[in-house]
Amino acid sequence: MHVVSKLSPPRSRPHPLAGAITLREPSSVIPCEAMSEAYVHGYDARETARLSDQAGTLVDLLHHDTAYPAGSRVLEAGCGVGAQTVTLARNSPEARFTSVDVSATSLAEAARRLEAAGLDNVDLRRADLYALPYAPASFDHLFVCFVLEHLARPVEALRGLSELLRPGGSVTVIEGDHGSTTFHPDSEAARAAIACQVELQRRSGGDSEIGRRLYPLLVEAGLRDVRISPRMVYVDASRPALVDGFTRRTFTAMIEGVRAPALAAGLIDAERFDAGICDLHRTTEPDGVFTYTFFKAVALR
Amino acid sequence: MHVVSKLSPPRSRPHPLAGAITLREPSSVIPCEAMSEAYVHGYDARETARLSDQAGTLVDLLHHDTAYPAGSRVLEAGCGVGAQTVTLARNSPEARFTSVDVSATSLAEAARRLEAAGLDNVDLRRADLYALPYAPASFDHLFVCFVLEHLARPVEALRGLSELLRPGGSVTVIEGDHGSTTFHPDSEAARAAIACQVELQRRSGGDSEIGRRLYPLLVEAGLRDVRISPRMVYVDASRPALVDGFTRRTFTAMIEGVRAPALAAGLIDAERFDAGICDLHRTTEPDGVFTYTFFKAVALR
Repeated sequence: MHVVSKLSPPRSRPHPLAGAITLREPSSVIPCEAMSEAYVHGYDARETARLSDQAGTLVDLLHHDTAYPAGSRVLEAGCGVGAQTVTLARNSPEARFTSVDVSATSLAEAARRLEAAGLDNVDLRRADLYALPYAPASFDHLFVCFVLEHLARPVEALRGLSELLRPGGSVTVIEGDHGSTTFHPDSEAARAAIACQVELQRRSGGDSEIGRRLYPLLVEAGLRDVRISPRMVYVDASRPALVDGFTRRTFTAMIEGVRAPALAAGLIDAERFDAGICDLHRTTEPDGVFTYTFFKAVALR
Repeated sequence: MHVVSKLSPPRSRPHPLAGAITLREPSSVIPCEAMSEAYVHGYDARETARLSDQAGTLVDLLHHDTAYPAGSRVLEAGCGVGAQTVTLARNSPEARFTSVDVSATSLAEAARRLEAAGLDNVDLRRADLYALPYAPASFDHLFVCFVLEHLARPVEALRGLSELLRPGGSVTVIEGDHGSTTFHPDSEAARAAIACQVELQRRSGGDSEIGRRLYPLLVEAGLRDVRISPRMVYVDASRPALVDGFTRRTFTAMIEGVRAPALAAGLIDAERFDAGICDLHRTTEPDGVFTYTFFKAVALR
């Protein structure tokens, strides 16, 4: 299991949506008829595929209204493998991005993605988010996505990052909230399996239900004109790309990914966890429904 | 407590958002500093005020995209006191509405509201939603809002109502989902108090978490091109009208309204229920957040 420092984001951030748990082996095969054979592949390949799926289905929902003016200097804090960076840089081709992450491995993957996308308006830098080597007012805008959920001190992080902005610069933050999940058919077991992820992330110092509290966090960090817009991913059988790309291959795969640490921590027994995963897969059937809400905050320094 | 027939909607529907529980006395005064003195007024006046508050803050969110062509014949099934009817009729002044409800008392109030609003394009009729006195294809469009949550057989109701439409006519359904509620600070007691409302409504034959399953319900009723759009009410301190009008005077007031039947049914003890109500009020403070999701379905016969 990955250990999260109290002062830094996780050294690698394998799942944008997910918690601070990084599995190094394939998860066990769960005896559930609804499961795809793809889930027995090795973790890394599967995880990379899942990230691509997620970015593809969520990109419009989360990013369609983020664009920066020509010449503006944008700091992306915690870019990870660049899943959001490619979208950001493509949507604002005349802006100049500085995307930082603490993990050299993630940055190497981000560089590969940017090159593959033919984007040259991003500088990638390895640095600790709590101690970035930039002077105050070095940037016009700040972008933070799927990062605060991992931090024990998100307000301190936001305050420090905001000091790198010029007065009047904008701050954009996007985070998920696992507690926002609803589904049909409802299932106590599925909710118990999700609760394992929430508890493991909490024990790592993070908060996978942070989305709902972006407003007070940004206000406490001293930002002004804080405006929140929820972004619900609503999935039913009329939206097959989301059934597969979000419910199955993003959310359920993420919860499935905490099986081993959840069992090791004694949070749940195997039978109940596996029943929960089966019930999450059940929501991908023709009469099933799944919802999840991200929260996007925009504010000014 | 109001008893819901298995074949009819509740004889009066005092809260659009709420359950099938009708209180006849003022609820007890709960010892919570956050509570407004207004809550110790008699139930009926308070409830009427709450309905008006709700309609005012939610009308755009729920109804902005519903308008019917000139000359079209629209059936509103379960109009209650006309809280939605006024909006519908105002937004489609050249359409002709037939709004039915099983309660003569509610219809009298609806008539008063329509007259006060100067609207004359609505016929109010008292009738049982499961046995309406209209021939097949009598209407072009069907509108159903906050009604299915009360019914033990919502698919049967939808199927019967749809038969009154011409082929190709539209069906619009709006329902809430209490299980979609999230808030900050989170509170087990508040969730337990909400769960009382859900359980009481379930015992009355309804489902206060029906919003999430509109898609399978409409498909099972034989409708086509079913399209769902979730409508989240997101409330933080930057939206004071919603803090007061929705979190405090709509949702929390509704949950507070089931105190007596919840205690009588032994679902919860008074101390825990009251703590839950206090915690819901806590979410209206400057650092609090509250979210609730309605689901709107549009389909074709």
